[in-house]
Amino acid sequence: MGAKTKKKVYFVGVDLGATKILAGVYDSRLNFIGKAKLSTKANRGYREVVRRIARCISDAIDECEVSLKQVKAVGIGAPAAVDPDTGKVIFAPNLNWKNKPLRDDLQVLIKRPIQVDNDCNVCALGVYEQELTPKPKSMLGIFLGTGIGGGIILNGKLHHGFNQTAGEIGHMLINFDGPETTWGSRGTFEMYAGRQSIYRAIREAIAKGEKTVLTEMLGPELKDLRSGDLRKALKRDDALVRRIVHDAAVATGIVVGNMVNLLNPQVIALGGGVMEALSKEMMPVIQETAPRHALPGTIKGIRIFASKLADYAGIAGAAVLAKRLSQRQ
Amino acid sequence: MGAKTKKKVYFVGVDLGATKILAGVYDSRLNFIGKAKLSTKANRGYREVVRRIARCISDAIDECEVSLKQVKAVGIGAPAAVDPDTGKVIFAPNLNWKNKPLRDDLQVLIKRPIQVDNDCNVCALGVYEQELTPKPKSMLGIFLGTGIGGGIILNGKLHHGFNQTAGEIGHMLINFDGPETTWGSRGTFEMYAGRQSIYRAIREAIAKGEKTVLTEMLGPELKDLRSGDLRKALKRDDALVRRIVHDAAVATGIVVGNMVNLLNPQVIALGGGVMEALSKEMMPVIQETAPRHALPGTIKGIRIFASKLADYAGIAGAAVLAKRLSQRQ
Repeated sequence: MGAKTKKKVYFVGVDLGATKILAGVYDSRLNFIGKAKLSTKANRGYREVVRRIARCISDAIDECEVSLKQVKAVGIGAPAAVDPDTGKVIFAPNLNWKNKPLRDDLQVLIKRPIQVDNDCNVCALGVYEQELTPKPKSMLGIFLGTGIGGGIILNGKLHHGFNQTAGEIGHMLINFDGPETTWGSRGTFEMYAGRQSIYRAIREAIAKGEKTVLTEMLGPELKDLRSGDLRKALKRDDALVRRIVHDAAVATGIVVGNMVNLLNPQVIALGGGVMEALSKEMMPVIQETAPRHALPGTIKGIRIFASKLADYAGIAGAAVLAKRLSQRQ
Repeated sequence: MGAKTKKKVYFVGVDLGATKILAGVYDSRLNFIGKAKLSTKANRGYREVVRRIARCISDAIDECEVSLKQVKAVGIGAPAAVDPDTGKVIFAPNLNWKNKPLRDDLQVLIKRPIQVDNDCNVCALGVYEQELTPKPKSMLGIFLGTGIGGGIILNGKLHHGFNQTAGEIGHMLINFDGPETTWGSRGTFEMYAGRQSIYRAIREAIAKGEKTVLTEMLGPELKDLRSGDLRKALKRDDALVRRIVHDAAVATGIVVGNMVNLLNPQVIALGGGVMEALSKEMMPVIQETAPRHALPGTIKGIRIFASKLADYAGIAGAAVLAKRLSQRQ
């Protein structure tokens, strides 16, 4: 007995998405122990989603034979503008939430300390913690998913900005003379490299009569189109998909170059579902494009890489939030 | 006698430009005392410019009845990539310098502690110190001169980045489908709002047969064209100048919007010779354009303003460098 009975402590990291909730259990040194997954059911409203987050946390710790008492703190990444000081979700368009006290409402259910932050900030923190040794002084994470977001880490800490909204790199305008699209404002990074925009560009091209193997694979409506289908189409050397993925990679390379000039971070990490599926095709183009847009001498020694964490970035980063919270308390 | 004989101390801030050197004398609370000016004569080579910086400092303190012994430290802003830790100029294209140990070489001549930094970083520091009370947590300075540069201040300190080159906002690509120009790479912020690009756009338009009062004012070659002439042409409602200055302001507004999304600084200050001459015309366009490119909720409460320091930004900021250096020693 003796030392052996010393209670082990854990941190839980939650990645709250518009369609699914992931909860990961990490030990005190942030080693991954196990996880659980639950659909979000955002349509059922805020209260129900809060209950489902609590349930997903319960499922995850149950899976790992950990009791709630052993959980020192919980971190949450939300697809939203978040006030990290109060744990309030200011605005979450994909959940249809405005001014929701997520931290306090969840605390009533799980009675543990909770830290909430923006999902892309949290993913950046996950990459920083799990993939980088030694720690760089500064890191920018760029996450290409349905939309595009970013997270800025300076001296090991997230940079939140005045309105807590820093890192919205998807809305960087990079082409103000760009062609009109039938969706939203034109010329932003997200319009070229976000999944939604990539899918729309493909559908528009098909509507204009362009050919692609995707219609063979999925039917003329491209039902259930996923990033993985684009990879399959590229393997079959599909010209349309190749062009659109190439354009997305060029846009990403331009933004990386802009950020080398502007923030000059030591590391730029690329992640998100689009990168997860297409990093092999996109990274060479990004690596070639960025230096052409960076000033001489500015990009030397800066590491630009594709994160391998995939879904684990969000839960790992949220666990970092939890651990940091417990260290402050 | 007694307390009165306590020696007063001063800081000297130097703004090293491609054509002129300015040295300002500041008291221990960074109140401006006086200044001197000398042409740079960059064509005479590095050694001579270092001697001229020393001479300009001597002239300034002599003007203010201050002895070199009373100068606690000297700060210098150079038009260059600078390593602030070593005081080395890494690369100064407009002075034709590469890897010059400016701090050490000047120290031999003036025997005072010296801190060197990039000129736009230094101007940002000057605006932060002299124009903002209380101090914001974060500030971005954007300086529109011959070219365009920026300086990022986070928690009161300059953000230098991994290669010490952060803040190069003039090279942000904002229009990758933009029309070809006959000069340099297309589509960067500097191509729309830098003085050199504005002048070139005007000259190109004249070559294509467009009319402007500038040719009446200065002759067909636009000899000695200055930012002030653009202001005069606007007063006479010159359509060509109006269009080009408007385009410059729109580009600036887009970049301000991009930065609100990305860095979300509490304050964005605009300065430099172009703003000094044209802020009345450009600021309303910038103030109107930026919010259209910022995401909902991100720009609220952020102050966007035109610095009134003009030439004093550089020397005041360099004096801040000097004071901070003396506080560290």
